[in-house]
Amino acid sequence: MKNYIKHHEWNIIEEGFDPHVNQISESIFSIGNGRMGQRANFEEEYSGETLRGSYVAGVYYPDKTRVGWWKNGYPEYFAKVLNAPNWIGIHVSIDNQKLDLAKCKVEEFRRILNMRSGYLLRSFVATLGDGKKVKIESKRFCSMAHGEIGAIRYSITPINFTAKATLSIYVDADVVNKDSNYDEKFWEEVYKEASEGRAIVTAQTKKTFFHVTTGMTYTIESAGKKATFDRVNIEQREKFAGNVIQLDLEQDKETVVYKYAAILSSENHPKDKLVENCKSVLDEASSKGFDKLFEEHEKVWFHKWEECDITIEGDVAAQQGIRFNIFQLTQTYTGDDERLNIGPKGFTGEKYGGSTYWDTEAYCLPFYLATAEQQVARNLLVYRYKHLPKAIENAAKLGFTEGAALYPMVTMNGEECHNEWEITFEEIHRNGAIAYAIFDYVRYTGDEKYLTEYGLEVLIGISRFWAQRVNWSARKNQYVMLGVTGPNEYENNVNNNWYTNTIATWTLKYTLEAVDFVKKDDSQAYQNIVKKTKLKEEEETAKWRDIIDKMYYPEDKHQGVFLQQDGFLDKELLTVKDLRPEDRPLNQKWSWDRILRSCFIKQADVLQGLYFFEDNFDQETIRKNFDFYEPMTVHESSLSPCVHVILASKLGYKQKAYELYLRTARLDLDDYNNDTEDGLHITSMAGTWMSVIKGFGGLRVKDGRLHFNPYVPDQWKSYSFRLEFRGRVVKVKITTDGIETKLESGSPMEIVVKDEVVKIS
Amino acid sequence: MKNYIKHHEWNIIEEGFDPHVNQISESIFSIGNGRMGQRANFEEEYSGETLRGSYVAGVYYPDKTRVGWWKNGYPEYFAKVLNAPNWIGIHVSIDNQKLDLAKCKVEEFRRILNMRSGYLLRSFVATLGDGKKVKIESKRFCSMAHGEIGAIRYSITPINFTAKATLSIYVDADVVNKDSNYDEKFWEEVYKEASEGRAIVTAQTKKTFFHVTTGMTYTIESAGKKATFDRVNIEQREKFAGNVIQLDLEQDKETVVYKYAAILSSENHPKDKLVENCKSVLDEASSKGFDKLFEEHEKVWFHKWEECDITIEGDVAAQQGIRFNIFQLTQTYTGDDERLNIGPKGFTGEKYGGSTYWDTEAYCLPFYLATAEQQVARNLLVYRYKHLPKAIENAAKLGFTEGAALYPMVTMNGEECHNEWEITFEEIHRNGAIAYAIFDYVRYTGDEKYLTEYGLEVLIGISRFWAQRVNWSARKNQYVMLGVTGPNEYENNVNNNWYTNTIATWTLKYTLEAVDFVKKDDSQAYQNIVKKTKLKEEEETAKWRDIIDKMYYPEDKHQGVFLQQDGFLDKELLTVKDLRPEDRPLNQKWSWDRILRSCFIKQADVLQGLYFFEDNFDQETIRKNFDFYEPMTVHESSLSPCVHVILASKLGYKQKAYELYLRTARLDLDDYNNDTEDGLHITSMAGTWMSVIKGFGGLRVKDGRLHFNPYVPDQWKSYSFRLEFRGRVVKVKITTDGIETKLESGSPMEIVVKDEVVKIS
Repeated sequence: MKNYIKHHEWNIIEEGFDPHVNQISESIFSIGNGRMGQRANFEEEYSGETLRGSYVAGVYYPDKTRVGWWKNGYPEYFAKVLNAPNWIGIHVSIDNQKLDLAKCKVEEFRRILNMRSGYLLRSFVATLGDGKKVKIESKRFCSMAHGEIGAIRYSITPINFTAKATLSIYVDADVVNKDSNYDEKFWEEVYKEASEGRAIVTAQTKKTFFHVTTGMTYTIESAGKKATFDRVNIEQREKFAGNVIQLDLEQDKETVVYKYAAILSSENHPKDKLVENCKSVLDEASSKGFDKLFEEHEKVWFHKWEECDITIEGDVAAQQGIRFNIFQLTQTYTGDDERLNIGPKGFTGEKYGGSTYWDTEAYCLPFYLATAEQQVARNLLVYRYKHLPKAIENAAKLGFTEGAALYPMVTMNGEECHNEWEITFEEIHRNGAIAYAIFDYVRYTGDEKYLTEYGLEVLIGISRFWAQRVNWSARKNQYVMLGVTGPNEYENNVNNNWYTNTIATWTLKYTLEAVDFVKKDDSQAYQNIVKKTKLKEEEETAKWRDIIDKMYYPEDKHQGVFLQQDGFLDKELLTVKDLRPEDRPLNQKWSWDRILRSCFIKQADVLQGLYFFEDNFDQETIRKNFDFYEPMTVHESSLSPCVHVILASKLGYKQKAYELYLRTARLDLDDYNNDTEDGLHITSMAGTWMSVIKGFGGLRVKDGRLHFNPYVPDQWKSYSFRLEFRGRVVKVKITTDGIETKLESGSPMEIVVKDEVVKIS
Repeated sequence: MKNYIKHHEWNIIEEGFDPHVNQISESIFSIGNGRMGQRANFEEEYSGETLRGSYVAGVYYPDKTRVGWWKNGYPEYFAKVLNAPNWIGIHVSIDNQKLDLAKCKVEEFRRILNMRSGYLLRSFVATLGDGKKVKIESKRFCSMAHGEIGAIRYSITPINFTAKATLSIYVDADVVNKDSNYDEKFWEEVYKEASEGRAIVTAQTKKTFFHVTTGMTYTIESAGKKATFDRVNIEQREKFAGNVIQLDLEQDKETVVYKYAAILSSENHPKDKLVENCKSVLDEASSKGFDKLFEEHEKVWFHKWEECDITIEGDVAAQQGIRFNIFQLTQTYTGDDERLNIGPKGFTGEKYGGSTYWDTEAYCLPFYLATAEQQVARNLLVYRYKHLPKAIENAAKLGFTEGAALYPMVTMNGEECHNEWEITFEEIHRNGAIAYAIFDYVRYTGDEKYLTEYGLEVLIGISRFWAQRVNWSARKNQYVMLGVTGPNEYENNVNNNWYTNTIATWTLKYTLEAVDFVKKDDSQAYQNIVKKTKLKEEEETAKWRDIIDKMYYPEDKHQGVFLQQDGFLDKELLTVKDLRPEDRPLNQKWSWDRILRSCFIKQADVLQGLYFFEDNFDQETIRKNFDFYEPMTVHESSLSPCVHVILASKLGYKQKAYELYLRTARLDLDDYNNDTEDGLHITSMAGTWMSVIKGFGGLRVKDGRLHFNPYVPDQWKSYSFRLEFRGRVVKVKITTDGIETKLESGSPMEIVVKDEVVKIS
């Protein structure tokens, strides 16, 4: 845990240059716009420790799988988020001395991420080897208004000298992935050009043949006027193109480089038009100019904040934390493009390779449902619908037949690309989360038509998987599900994981409901689905009903708790308090077998199920299970605390809820798990949002109405947020005195506050 | 399965050259002498598919572990059997045409492995591009009399020409391992020299710094006389030294190269004496000459065969099969060097990396106990005694304390070097096999002193491991053992594997007996052990007794069977007959999760326990378990069928016993599992021996006497074998009429035949 970020309501602030935290800051101060993202690397050269990272949405590379021992069924490739061409580079030399923060004295260093307006500001005074002092200020953003434009204002002011300087302004596709399995480079040059004032490189990924064209243009002003240069050289080498400019720097006079970058991918343009279209984007950017581009960008951010801000009174650190979570989520996924999804690290790092996990459905969807237009959440669902054929292929690779679908643990294009058998082959509850998201979406939006249009097909595929994955236990005279890994990945290959069994039968029930709905809603559409999926309705639904009726769920009736899996009570039942501090985190201190046979829980498992299906259980059952499992939960997954916050809030365990809220809200800002340098925990940020809205705010949707059961944590004065709900926008403020609601737009509606119906208009 | 090896009682014969089976033959026709081994690669150049392999006992390289996802506790390195310098090379060019069997017409090709005398013979007639026909005959052996000498008689006879020829005779340390994790070469040159008639290279392994000096000298005869050369050139390059000889080949006249190689390792010589000693060995070899060396070698083999041959009347294929197994075992491990052990592939391939598995204790020990001097088996035990400190370190890496020892799954030097968590961390029953081997050795030899000298310390370490590895189940009010993998590796991370629980408590009991014995036998020695191991006798033995008393064993009382693990009866209980042929072998056709949740068994598990501890169970219990488990066993481990043969024989299931015997006896000769090209299944060969002796012969040792309960498989007329037992040698012949025994040496003794005591003298 670190504590170097200054607290502020709207800004993330780092003061003073510390190379040891530089890679952490590179993650925290990342900027993006849903189409691309950029770690907070320096524009100028930096020979210190850095994780350079630019990312372009949807562009990936299937790196050959690396394992110690191959097992049949492993995916041959692991699709990886690609480190994309560098568009930020501006190298500076003064009197032939390179400006490199690892090699000069750095003072007044300051990095600010302005979340309100969505830009990164960095300033410092560097003293070069010969004593020359220069002040640099750089401001950059990835335009939220124009998804393919990045812009930089890079200002240079000599403090104590007048001298010749060289600026190298370039784009560079000669980049590597740190996590490359075989130290391969993934990009090849397709095209490049460089002329005075402009440079363009088109690179393609090996194997996947994505083309990315990265272009830049620039203008340079000196003391507010167009600068004059001694000379401009064209610089080209493999996968690299730029200009090298020689000019004079005059003491106390500011020279400003405005660099405009255009990043276009073949996902959005015909390959043969990329260069042409890149030039148009560059022309547009440079003709608008930096200030105008920024204004348009800022406007989008203002609008976004109106939609999804949470304000907290009385706790600046909490305010900064929640805004940081919302800010990073928003710049990762805008919902404009149904081909995209939300990677665990977003555009802030390479780790966890593929882009999509069940995190999206289980943790992110509620955020987008409540803070964005309906279309945004719908696109997340359609993304999975489009992957259905691949999910059927994935299942077939594991021996499933007749249209059974297994959604992948990690994916870019629907194909599985994870390679631990206990996860890939066995952590199949993910399939249930895909189904649950359909339910969650329909419940929130009332958009039942979605079932007819897309949902039912997905549900049929998943239900078929469950029906084949269970087996009949002659001994128990019940269905069982053997050899699975639940959400708690600190157990592997267990039998009858309560959560997995529960979400499996839930899926079957919901699919039966969906079948009935679609039949009535649009019988022609239903017939089309039957034909397309080859559904043998009578036979298959009968089987599903049989499984629903005769599924086995492990429980301990004596204690009144559901058992995480068969045999759980044979463990030595300790609590987290029994652990020595030096044993934490377990995953870094204990061998895997020790973790597996211990009772300690990485992330909510039975409790995840009680959270999803709370209406099926009484408060007492939830309490008993929470009291049983919470003390054993080490929360070593960033996805865990939010579920506990929500349940603790429901149970009135306010202190526990707040304690766990703290764990999630400033996870990255304070580098809680000592891994922020790899990138931010993007998907769990939605869990932080849920902690506030569903936890403290007690928001639920029932019978098409918003229900609140709110309280204010003792440490806060009040908090407020805004919800999109079925065409309305509701502002909610919760204080110790109660709840204030205001309908900002849309027709009057009923809400339910602590079981009391309130009309708002 | 293939069937190209000709059946013969003493020889393994391949006729006709088929490049597609060349790598299989390279494995099958391997030669060795316990100090080194050599695959049946060609002396001349060969540009076709080949797995070149020379191996030197005890020389390994810790290749950096390669996994997809690192888990805490993984060993950083995987010690690998090293492909060692090539000593067989003799390249032949005739009129500047290379002799390369991949590039010329090959006729009359024949490979013979003469098992009786222990040599490889290869002959063929090659037609070169220009029509020249040349006959080649090569005979080679690794001397059993002089472990550091290899010798080759390489004969060249022009059939239809007289021409100039060039012979390159060399040693070459520029070799690679096919299984290198990162395509690294593991050898570096330390020294080389080459002069007329001699070449020497010393190479060292990276990291481990083993030195291996490989030298060669040669003589060449033409038509029976010392040949005259046109010229001899010295050839040297990195890690390579040799002579290039130009000479005349005359039609119909035989030119013979006698190549003598000396392979010395720093395991047996001071590094600074290696070259000097190599020269002495070369001098000795060349002064003795090929025929004399061969005579000495053959004599050792004759003696070996006297010790361990099994003769079978009435079934040539079975005779060839059993001899092949004995031959390969014998040339893998001679028992002369307690630092060595028996790798699963012996000196015939690289696969399975490390040299020692639990195979040695569970499968190989009985063979050496019965066919070699007591010292040989004892050395196998002492090998593990010497690794005890490393076993304690291995356990400590997994969190065990206070002298608990976990022997490795795979090792060269006592350190664990396997890296699948479900095996390395969880397949801990191996620890029990180490303890069982001590018991097995003492039972067979009566050498109880071994307990005092070495055995008890090992038993204490292993018992401590078990005592820490179990935990108390409050629910069961019994001890349980969670998260293990049993011998049946088609189950992972199971709870209460019956075999593991059984061997764990058995170890504790045997350790208590050993404590009592040593105390009485030598109280001073006992005190020394207590001091060295810091044994808290009262406290620790009390704990062990408590575990013995209160251990939980899964069983189904209704069916009268022990359960392989908790929950086994929840599986869909199918039999192997229910499997479609296209599903076999499961490990190549099914995904891992499917294998895991199926009932199918890779290798004997409960039955392994019943075999080890048969005296603790009545015949009916054994029968019920055999009848339950045998039909589910796919025997996809080469180690499985032998245990089933022994139990089936005991139960009178003669047909089943013979069927499973066939599976093990010709496994490699007929390439049953389609993997012989990787090397031979050396350790399971001892299982084949056991199938005959303990299965058909029904041999047991009880109360210090040999017990037989023999029968003759219907397909055979008779079989005979010889046993070493407590200073005696007994010849046994079993016919349909009964058993004939003869005491070849040693004092008179009683044996028990079908419960009847017989005196033999």
